[in-house]
Amino acid sequence: MLRALVGTQSCVAGGLAGQMELARESLHISVTDPVAASMNFLNEVASRFPAAISLAAGRPSVEFYDIADVERCLAVYVGYLRDQGMTGSRARDAILQYGRTNGQLGMMISRMLEIDEGISVPEESVMVTSGCQEAMVIALRGLAAAPEDVVLAVEPCYVGFTGAARVVGVPVVGVPEGPEGVSPQAVARVTGEVRASGRRPRALYVVPNFANPSGISLRDEARRGLIEVAAEEDLLILEDDPYGLFGADDRRSPTLKSLDTDQRVIYLGSFAKSVFPGARLGFLVADQVVVGADGRRSLLADELSTVKSMVTVNTSPIAQAVIGGALVSCGYSLRSANQEKIAFYRRNMAALLGALDRCFTDPSITWNTPDGGFFAVLRAPVRADEKLLELSARDYGVLWTPMSFFYLQGGGSDAIRLSCSALTADQIDEGVRRLATFIADVRS
Amino acid sequence: MLRALVGTQSCVAGGLAGQMELARESLHISVTDPVAASMNFLNEVASRFPAAISLAAGRPSVEFYDIADVERCLAVYVGYLRDQGMTGSRARDAILQYGRTNGQLGMMISRMLEIDEGISVPEESVMVTSGCQEAMVIALRGLAAAPEDVVLAVEPCYVGFTGAARVVGVPVVGVPEGPEGVSPQAVARVTGEVRASGRRPRALYVVPNFANPSGISLRDEARRGLIEVAAEEDLLILEDDPYGLFGADDRRSPTLKSLDTDQRVIYLGSFAKSVFPGARLGFLVADQVVVGADGRRSLLADELSTVKSMVTVNTSPIAQAVIGGALVSCGYSLRSANQEKIAFYRRNMAALLGALDRCFTDPSITWNTPDGGFFAVLRAPVRADEKLLELSARDYGVLWTPMSFFYLQGGGSDAIRLSCSALTADQIDEGVRRLATFIADVRS
Repeated sequence: MLRALVGTQSCVAGGLAGQMELARESLHISVTDPVAASMNFLNEVASRFPAAISLAAGRPSVEFYDIADVERCLAVYVGYLRDQGMTGSRARDAILQYGRTNGQLGMMISRMLEIDEGISVPEESVMVTSGCQEAMVIALRGLAAAPEDVVLAVEPCYVGFTGAARVVGVPVVGVPEGPEGVSPQAVARVTGEVRASGRRPRALYVVPNFANPSGISLRDEARRGLIEVAAEEDLLILEDDPYGLFGADDRRSPTLKSLDTDQRVIYLGSFAKSVFPGARLGFLVADQVVVGADGRRSLLADELSTVKSMVTVNTSPIAQAVIGGALVSCGYSLRSANQEKIAFYRRNMAALLGALDRCFTDPSITWNTPDGGFFAVLRAPVRADEKLLELSARDYGVLWTPMSFFYLQGGGSDAIRLSCSALTADQIDEGVRRLATFIADVRS
Repeated sequence: MLRALVGTQSCVAGGLAGQMELARESLHISVTDPVAASMNFLNEVASRFPAAISLAAGRPSVEFYDIADVERCLAVYVGYLRDQGMTGSRARDAILQYGRTNGQLGMMISRMLEIDEGISVPEESVMVTSGCQEAMVIALRGLAAAPEDVVLAVEPCYVGFTGAARVVGVPVVGVPEGPEGVSPQAVARVTGEVRASGRRPRALYVVPNFANPSGISLRDEARRGLIEVAAEEDLLILEDDPYGLFGADDRRSPTLKSLDTDQRVIYLGSFAKSVFPGARLGFLVADQVVVGADGRRSLLADELSTVKSMVTVNTSPIAQAVIGGALVSCGYSLRSANQEKIAFYRRNMAALLGALDRCFTDPSITWNTPDGGFFAVLRAPVRADEKLLELSARDYGVLWTPMSFFYLQGGGSDAIRLSCSALTADQIDEGVRRLATFIADVRS
């Protein structure tokens, strides 16, 4: 939660002649922010040892695209607008002018959700955002109204969510996950503790498919249980689903939103993995009904549009056009458009798990076995901290992410996040071999 | 400042069967937000009377562009990357992958500022943002650290700034402007009052050129005075300059940033008017030196990158490429690229002022005479509120903006903002004629 650092803007002795200097302590959030410091350290180590194989980088692969695809998607979208009967100048305005606060892809995204995820929501409930990060900021800012309001988050937690909460000043309370992910019972327990402490839990943040960082996917029963506990405990659920596409088709679990019969779930989506990150396009679905004291009813997405207008006004229509063209091109099914990419990521995860099997025989070293997504977690009897990471990068040429980065109140000191999304199978193999040698050496 | 609305998420009697409903009062910011409610009313009236001439719409004209320009700019930027020696895959990553938090146009924007505005800043001090709105959010969130921190804003104030402050929970204190704009003395007086009340003023928000909403430009002496008072009162200045380009070349005043010898000014820029809004690209320049307790020095832009990473991660590289291509195409001089547009807006302002001269002869009705920009303000002995606006739209076919929308604590009830940016000279003429008839009728 927020630490209000009181400081001063006054000149600091020894500054450049006549030049004002700011005391870092007088800033609200700076590079000294704990999460930022960790991520900066990771990037800094990566840049100092460029030859190291990175099992830390969680970015998607863009090998499947070419710059020409941007132009192609844009042209497809413009053609779509013309097919909708838009004249030249109206089509021009749709791309070059300011646009509707909640964006112009509501229909396309609701169709995609229906086809790919079995989620049926009105197009008016969709808000297009400047990446999923902005969607988290907007949902948090809109929902947390009172000083006692807090949000719950499955812990270990994606740093983007804790960052979004920090920027809008909403405290986050962790709900610890087990080997099978978060349990409805744990959510009920923590909700009770939060209420007992006089605070009000507004929502639970959860990544049900191939979570970042843990790689864990929730079982179907747990998904149904979360919907029930949300109703019993009067919580909303913030479902973040960037990796759902990248699993086995025959073992797919339903999204929480597709099970959501009474509008408990706000669904957060991203096109960074299903298309490419360069558009920086994400969205949220908020089909909850909001009722005013005057009885006036509206959709939560419309209420949140006020927050959106104060954060970025509206999302770049050019970026929306590029993603809109991609959606038209695939008949609104990102699942069908991503078959090649899905196979690539699944091959990489298989390569990662296979290499772990071959290279780690000591029973005191364990790991989980996600059947999709970008991440797996290794546990070893070592202190997996920044010092160890630097040693690993410098002397063994392999990078990884300390799981401790993803805990709110400490934890994960013996765990390592391994990512396989931005490497070839050979690189993954060699990276795990180096990791095994490193861990064997530091233990002996 | 923030009103923490405590409410409940519980079911409201009479809701759809089993469906959760949210009480609007339980939201932090919703369409009931006063500023949002005013703007929604304006849009709603505009949509109900589409035949009305809008002297309210402040959006730029995009007549000067075609959709093909997006493709062209993108191609120019890709060519630029290749000329810089970027290989195919690195160029692809620059457009399609995530990018540096502060963006990839720092060098181009610093060159543009040098050529067009005489502002000399290192490229590392530039942060590319998802529109200028995000730049305001990031600057405010980064600077306001303690509960007692407030920002000052010249009043009447652009609603985007008050909205950004509301979303990050930073109180705004108005500094009233006179017919010549804000005076350094007024800034010193309000700063003293704020300090006396136990609060800490962190920065002053000012639009020195053709301000929205007042249309006023600051005289050179006032600009120098603001820099001095900022140093004396230990304030930063947030200089927002979206309209500076659209004035008389022979009567240009220096930007505050170009006068800023000791890094008092954070400069906020937008490409929405100088290129087109569809890219949603803006930037901030923060070349202040930040010093930590450990003595480590950095640029404020680097410290703020942590906030940026928590709001939108990074600005769409595709949108950056489009604007980057536009900057390359004009040799980094938006002033030279905008000659036609500058002439267009100046013709429209002349048409507006000419029509006011012809149509309003009653000495009790006055207006200011900006020599550029998008806005002028008319004062008349009427109560310029929402009721009057609706009457004007319905019975007289002309829309305008009540100046009262732009005051923090009330004011401007007899004043009307007139915009001339998105109309033809004939429409402006007819709109003012209708306005004159309307005002004559409501007074008699």
